[in-house]
Amino acid sequence: MSKFKKIIGGLSLALFMAGTAHAETLDLEALNALVNSNAEQDSYIFGTLLFLIGGFLVMWMAAGFAMLEAGLVRSKNVSMQCLKNISLYAVAGIMFWLIGYSIAYEITEGAKFANFASLGPRVFGDAADNSGGYSAASDWFFQMVFCATTASIVSGTLAERIKFWPFLIFTALLTGFIYPVVTSWEWGTGWLDALGFSDFAGSSLVHSTGGWAALVGAIILGARKGKYENGRVNPMPGSSMPLATLGVFILWLGWFGFNGASQLAMGTIKDVTEVSKIFVNTNLAACAGVVVAIFYTQIRYKKIDLTMALNGALAGLVAITAEPLTPTVVQSLLVGGAGSLLAMLTVPLLDKFKIDDVVGAIPVHLVAGIFGTLVVAYTNADVTFKAQLTGVVAIGVFTVVASAIGWLLLKFTVGIRVSAEDEEMGLDHAEVGVAAYPEFTT
Amino acid sequence: MSKFKKIIGGLSLALFMAGTAHAETLDLEALNALVNSNAEQDSYIFGTLLFLIGGFLVMWMAAGFAMLEAGLVRSKNVSMQCLKNISLYAVAGIMFWLIGYSIAYEITEGAKFANFASLGPRVFGDAADNSGGYSAASDWFFQMVFCATTASIVSGTLAERIKFWPFLIFTALLTGFIYPVVTSWEWGTGWLDALGFSDFAGSSLVHSTGGWAALVGAIILGARKGKYENGRVNPMPGSSMPLATLGVFILWLGWFGFNGASQLAMGTIKDVTEVSKIFVNTNLAACAGVVVAIFYTQIRYKKIDLTMALNGALAGLVAITAEPLTPTVVQSLLVGGAGSLLAMLTVPLLDKFKIDDVVGAIPVHLVAGIFGTLVVAYTNADVTFKAQLTGVVAIGVFTVVASAIGWLLLKFTVGIRVSAEDEEMGLDHAEVGVAAYPEFTT
Amino acid sequence: MSKFKKIIGGLSLALFMAGTAHAETLDLEALNALVNSNAEQDSYIFGTLLFLIGGFLVMWMAAGFAMLEAGLVRSKNVSMQCLKNISLYAVAGIMFWLIGYSIAYEITEGAKFANFASLGPRVFGDAADNSGGYSAASDWFFQMVFCATTASIVSGTLAERIKFWPFLIFTALLTGFIYPVVTSWEWGTGWLDALGFSDFAGSSLVHSTGGWAALVGAIILGARKGKYENGRVNPMPGSSMPLATLGVFILWLGWFGFNGASQLAMGTIKDVTEVSKIFVNTNLAACAGVVVAIFYTQIRYKKIDLTMALNGALAGLVAITAEPLTPTVVQSLLVGGAGSLLAMLTVPLLDKFKIDDVVGAIPVHLVAGIFGTLVVAYTNADVTFKAQLTGVVAIGVFTVVASAIGWLLLKFTVGIRVSAEDEEMGLDHAEVGVAAYPEFTT
Repeated sequence: MSKFKKIIGGLSLALFMAGTAHAETLDLEALNALVNSNAEQDSYIFGTLLFLIGGFLVMWMAAGFAMLEAGLVRSKNVSMQCLKNISLYAVAGIMFWLIGYSIAYEITEGAKFANFASLGPRVFGDAADNSGGYSAASDWFFQMVFCATTASIVSGTLAERIKFWPFLIFTALLTGFIYPVVTSWEWGTGWLDALGFSDFAGSSLVHSTGGWAALVGAIILGARKGKYENGRVNPMPGSSMPLATLGVFILWLGWFGFNGASQLAMGTIKDVTEVSKIFVNTNLAACAGVVVAIFYTQIRYKKIDLTMALNGALAGLVAITAEPLTPTVVQSLLVGGAGSLLAMLTVPLLDKFKIDDVVGAIPVHLVAGIFGTLVVAYTNADVTFKAQLTGVVAIGVFTVVASAIGWLLLKFTVGIRVSAEDEEMGLDHAEVGVAAYPEFTT
Repeated sequence: MSKFKKIIGGLSLALFMAGTAHAETLDLEALNALVNSNAEQDSYIFGTLLFLIGGFLVMWMAAGFAMLEAGLVRSKNVSMQCLKNISLYAVAGIMFWLIGYSIAYEITEGAKFANFASLGPRVFGDAADNSGGYSAASDWFFQMVFCATTASIVSGTLAERIKFWPFLIFTALLTGFIYPVVTSWEWGTGWLDALGFSDFAGSSLVHSTGGWAALVGAIILGARKGKYENGRVNPMPGSSMPLATLGVFILWLGWFGFNGASQLAMGTIKDVTEVSKIFVNTNLAACAGVVVAIFYTQIRYKKIDLTMALNGALAGLVAITAEPLTPTVVQSLLVGGAGSLLAMLTVPLLDKFKIDDVVGAIPVHLVAGIFGTLVVAYTNADVTFKAQLTGVVAIGVFTVVASAIGWLLLKFTVGIRVSAEDEEMGLDHAEVGVAAYPEFTT
Repeated sequence: MSKFKKIIGGLSLALFMAGTAHAETLDLEALNALVNSNAEQDSYIFGTLLFLIGGFLVMWMAAGFAMLEAGLVRSKNVSMQCLKNISLYAVAGIMFWLIGYSIAYEITEGAKFANFASLGPRVFGDAADNSGGYSAASDWFFQMVFCATTASIVSGTLAERIKFWPFLIFTALLTGFIYPVVTSWEWGTGWLDALGFSDFAGSSLVHSTGGWAALVGAIILGARKGKYENGRVNPMPGSSMPLATLGVFILWLGWFGFNGASQLAMGTIKDVTEVSKIFVNTNLAACAGVVVAIFYTQIRYKKIDLTMALNGALAGLVAITAEPLTPTVVQSLLVGGAGSLLAMLTVPLLDKFKIDDVVGAIPVHLVAGIFGTLVVAYTNADVTFKAQLTGVVAIGVFTVVASAIGWLLLKFTVGIRVSAEDEEMGLDHAEVGVAAYPEFTT
């Protein structure tokens, strides 16, 4: 149908419906019903629009991770990192449709697992689907991009030495099973939710889950060749700082959707006002993360470390994600700043244990994520430390065990690590066959 | 006027108007009129907002094409490719204002050409202009960025050997005449629309039109020097895979605006629910495109080709664009996956005929665009294969003929191809005078 | 609280409230009140949403400046430029919260300074705060990203030789005092506003203010070593044209938020229609800026200068920013084109006075900003040239004096310029300790 005819058709219909009360019998009850139906419609449209805008902003974070990681790996592995990032987003979308969403949101009831019969691909189009006051498809889209974010976290840590296909199989496990199970406990009204655990936009559910999976992977996979030699930590500088910086700006932008749209509604003055407050707190937590990082690295290392400033922003964002609404601005600055500091203090710790995290995803997503989740007990009066700790531990134990099983199964079947020669040569040549910068490097 | 005064002024006015029914005589008819007028206003705002959000997302696709092409050409031609992309967007905007919109939307009536008197620059501000239930300027903006997309497709194929100014003149022809004529047939309620041809967001109208113009240009312009020599196809690797990847992520993001806002309204539960479904289908078609590409290249070439994965995503997106609303998720995955596969199968075919398409725009936009248009007959019950085929053929024939005339006229007057020396040296030095990476290359 | 429970709870509440009139006594007055309250709510949501969308688009401009500047400096200073851009955004956010907003918007009354008691950090959460018809936090967020833009302008001009910390201290001064004072005169309903000065989205308030601060800084700081030697201007080509191009596309995209959301409301047909017109005029002014630049450089220099085309787009955008609503399309094209031309004519002038502006921010933001402000007298019938000139001069004098004091204090205390050795070696090595492209350069 042509664009114009559709518009005109839609308009006529709307005018016809709107005019009903007038045309037939101008009675008060009918008008009242019309007013209420209009209000309900507006609420539905606003809620759905929030999911759609939030959804495309979080989808854009996939590009942020891709650029951040492409900038922080060496040039011989850049094409591979790009390939992993676009592939994991594709796999996450399909797995979350195929099985993930139903695990996360459809098999719990009264905080217990049930309804296993409802497991399976997500189907849209049934009108009853949209009875929640927003479009079911918009909600699915928003939840799916969160799921993809979890997978993005893993790819950075394990860069430069993991094989492509086993990584992708783990991604399928993470996005189709591990993340959905964890999510079902809380956002799927499961037992953590019943317990009073609170994680507004996913400091734990998304970021720590990704962080734990990355940590276990890094331990099982081992460090890059030459990273830890003769008791020294050898720096392996990333290939492009502007791309890493671009990645962080993209992530920062996307986070307004991540946290803001987690309000889940904007059809009332209260809701949209709260979304606005979330924007402010989210932004200022990141600002504090940057400021703490530049002061800390200036004092500690006598130079300002750009990669720390970038990760400081991200750690601030991760830390505020568990509760971006109730804190005052001062609290948000403190949460963001402390998240950044904790992340920076974790970096040498990982090196001490020879855990090789190429992009610093474990300090940023796991450590700041745990901190952010626990600190909610102090910024939101309705939340107890005990509930938060329970959630953090439960998510940690489950993700560690499930990830370990996944990684070990892969290790002892198909293998997860490329050969020493391939690692030396770079994955772009070994597995991708397309050099990232054929004219700049030899 | 100051920001505050404006707000306060606007509010007072709104409150005054809203209070009318109450203040004068509290009668039912007046209240009913107010309710209907409020509903109409909301519908207008939502529709306009959809065009604005969709519009800026599609505008952003211009950056996506720029990055994709900058990444896929050799470093000696990168500045030129950036220059072409920003210039073509500028020319498209001006041409679509000057003449394009009026050809596309104002000279047809009852599926026939007419109203030639209305040809000319688009004027805004007339209140009657906004009688369609949305702001005329927002609609124009949304249509304009579609027009610019068509031109973006051409620049990639012809990279590395076409002269700047002739390319820009062709862009003016394409955006001021060819694309508008094709669009008038369908979205301008022309003969294809009357015939029942269906192309929701432009698999054919935008992507195939751009693809045909690129194909004809590539044939007339000839291959790059050294691309096909002694019966061999010499690979000419692109200068930056991360930029190409960034470009694809930008395009993927922009596509939510491209397809989603082609719903053209979101002021009802039905409309916004359909926009949501379009988001889901669009996203999953691209996911399938990536997955098919990585499996196919792994099996066929024993390595996973990043550029194929990137083009696979785009081919999936192009294929679903003709009908992103009616398909089920499974159908969307199949359409996206098949579009990707067809694009990949086309690449060696083009090489066989020595058609040198630098970025793979012909497989992605032309082939997947045609496929996507034809397959609508199977995913939308209201559409016949015959109507789709008629549209595909008509658009193809017209664009090929008009483009050929344009390219040949340019070839035999100002010339379209740079000298062999300039091509060797690179266009950045020959025509732009600014090296893209002065410190990385010699 | 779980996502689902929140939604369901919110819905029930809405339905309950919506149903009030019906349930108790179905009287006309109650229904009338409900209708008016619904309308007020919709207006509030639309206005707030405009600030949020506009806000995240303008926040994204920070990434645009980062990429533009990273592309236009030499590779030895790229990490530093990235660091400065993310740091200045962080500092701007904190300073504008701490003191800036209250200077700009809370201490003036009746066009005079007053209410000094209200100076101090911005607090959110008070319901009375939201009495303006939109969420106070959303407004703050939108104003804050404008403030950050002003600081972004300065960093480009002074690149490659200014010390990090003094630059950051100046940023704090600019975003916490200079910009807020200037803004208070106009948007804070101060004396310029009372005088009839008009600057819709900040050609002067944002762009010229940043430009003046950059100009004074460039004069006090001096040119880069070797830039002007033996009476010659030595070109120092930027390291990455695609990144510079990306930056401009990002800025262009962000400008739709910058100008569009400066309408400050979209809850009426009139407002959203005007936002749409602003989109069209903003876009076409930039298009004209590009077209003028490519013609001018082709004719003047026999080659098309990509950096001029990029800056032409920006100059067009800056010029239309003072009044993007009232001009016709033709006027917008003329304003954008003239802004671009003036910017290009300024470049050799700066070189003549040995003022070294690394990225061309002075021609783009200062010159095109002044021009754009003055020309409002010809595109908006309500505005006089005298008022515009007064504003331009007042903003110039104040910013020059305040900036000069700031820069000189810094120069004679901590010093603002790196040593000649550090400048030679590059700031990435001297102050950052992270090379931008460790594998591409030696």
